[in-house]
Amino acid sequence: MTTPHRTVSTFRARYAETDQMGVVYHSHYLVWCEIGRTDFLRSLGRTYAELEREGVYLAVTEARIRFLAPARYDDEIRVETWIERVQSRAVTFGYEIGRVAPSPPARLALATTTLVALDVRGTPMRLPPDLLQLLRGAATPSP
Amino acid sequence: MTTPHRTVSTFRARYAETDQMGVVYHSHYLVWCEIGRTDFLRSLGRTYAELEREGVYLAVTEARIRFLAPARYDDEIRVETWIERVQSRAVTFGYEIGRVAPSPPARLALATTTLVALDVRGTPMRLPPDLLQLLRGAATPSP
Amino acid sequence: MTTPHRTVSTFRARYAETDQMGVVYHSHYLVWCEIGRTDFLRSLGRTYAELEREGVYLAVTEARIRFLAPARYDDEIRVETWIERVQSRAVTFGYEIGRVAPSPPARLALATTTLVALDVRGTPMRLPPDLLQLLRGAATPSP
Amino acid sequence: MTTPHRTVSTFRARYAETDQMGVVYHSHYLVWCEIGRTDFLRSLGRTYAELEREGVYLAVTEARIRFLAPARYDDEIRVETWIERVQSRAVTFGYEIGRVAPSPPARLALATTTLVALDVRGTPMRLPPDLLQLLRGAATPSP
Repeated sequence: MTTPHRTVSTFRARYAETDQMGVVYHSHYLVWCEIGRTDFLRSLGRTYAELEREGVYLAVTEARIRFLAPARYDDEIRVETWIERVQSRAVTFGYEIGRVAPSPPARLALATTTLVALDVRGTPMRLPPDLLQLLRGAATPSP
Repeated sequence: MTTPHRTVSTFRARYAETDQMGVVYHSHYLVWCEIGRTDFLRSLGRTYAELEREGVYLAVTEARIRFLAPARYDDEIRVETWIERVQSRAVTFGYEIGRVAPSPPARLALATTTLVALDVRGTPMRLPPDLLQLLRGAATPSP
Repeated sequence: MTTPHRTVSTFRARYAETDQMGVVYHSHYLVWCEIGRTDFLRSLGRTYAELEREGVYLAVTEARIRFLAPARYDDEIRVETWIERVQSRAVTFGYEIGRVAPSPPARLALATTTLVALDVRGTPMRLPPDLLQLLRGAATPSP
Repeated sequence: MTTPHRTVSTFRARYAETDQMGVVYHSHYLVWCEIGRTDFLRSLGRTYAELEREGVYLAVTEARIRFLAPARYDDEIRVETWIERVQSRAVTFGYEIGRVAPSPPARLALATTTLVALDVRGTPMRLPPDLLQLLRGAATPSP
């Protein structure tokens, strides 16, 4: 039995993301989660850009982050993304954000974001059946 | 008996803060909370800029936001800030973010952020006694 | 004879806008110019939000900034905005960005941005006649 | 004879970087230039993070950008970076920003930024001799 689907995104912390405390400003972690989420959907064969072209928007309705250690400029950052929970109208992603380099590697933050599906007018809708099936498959350990 | 101390910050949503869904991108709400927190400390007679010059840094260790309705470009935004909890090494702020104009006014988000005190090297420290006293006073309903 | 129309926008530099050099990261000055531009249009009785609802988009095609002195967290910032040049399809705004407080006041940056009108599909178009007239009036010293 | 040193940085446009016009907000191009500059220095064997640890800061004093075509969410972006000019106290970088995918590839923007060296107190200083030599070497076509 394999574990549920997880993806890993890596990139470097940008100078623009630091603040005068000398570390990455905390709101940017939500942007890093978005990068993880984008790559996660892409790994399922569905890009978020396509979803929007088909009239499905995913809006964040809740975000939680625990910050464990600071990220610094030029650190190699790693975002691991998975699905915590899927419902007919909402999906919750989980994220572990870490530093890959320079050594020692470290866990920097844990986060979850819940997203609901909206149509082009911003009205809540059910997740499209094919997307729902993909997400459910990715949330479940394979036999 | 009066209620605990609360401050109100107002400003307009910036074009730069919108995303292609036509609404303010969710991570900016954490920046808006920071504006509320800055004004809250200022209202107690202590600016955060001064605190840093005295070697006290406040780092966010946890953030939670629930998004209730979208903010749009040029909306007049209102952030109400209060203290949820004070401990010797940490303080949790609460925020209600709303739209003042255009009509109708609306509640857009509820958030909390927990901050810990760090010295200039990033080592956790107790909140300085005078700051702790100010925060505790602000957290308590006056008689 | 009066001088051409100018507007003044004021706000405080945000912590999120600083970088690890301890000053405001340079790209945020372009956001501050956008605040100046938004207030300038509002002062002419035309909001940019309305323009977009009418199908007119203004896209930046060129930006130039000279940085003279750094802005710091919590500084009171002042953006003075005027029109440098109006053409049938483009308008160039000029900006002087300064610090109002703490003392001494200082000139922080000078900038220009050129914007062209686009329709909803992103195709270049002429500025709508009423907007063109407003901008030309604002660019000219009154008798 | 080879051409002067150039580096190429690639990454995807982030959702957080878009605005309600459906394209990347213009100020983010300056952040993309910073990514190019960081990679350019790294390719010379000198990281900007190290320079700062040695007490040398590079502050942007002038930026110019021409925007040729819009970048969109999830586009694969390519930043090509080179040195336009080196002086004892300043260096000017040139950038060409383009879209690699989806097809067709396109040139999106051309930019230059001039940076001066500052010491830890923000006082202008000469570029350190070894850095100056590296930059001059990178700016010159090799025989």
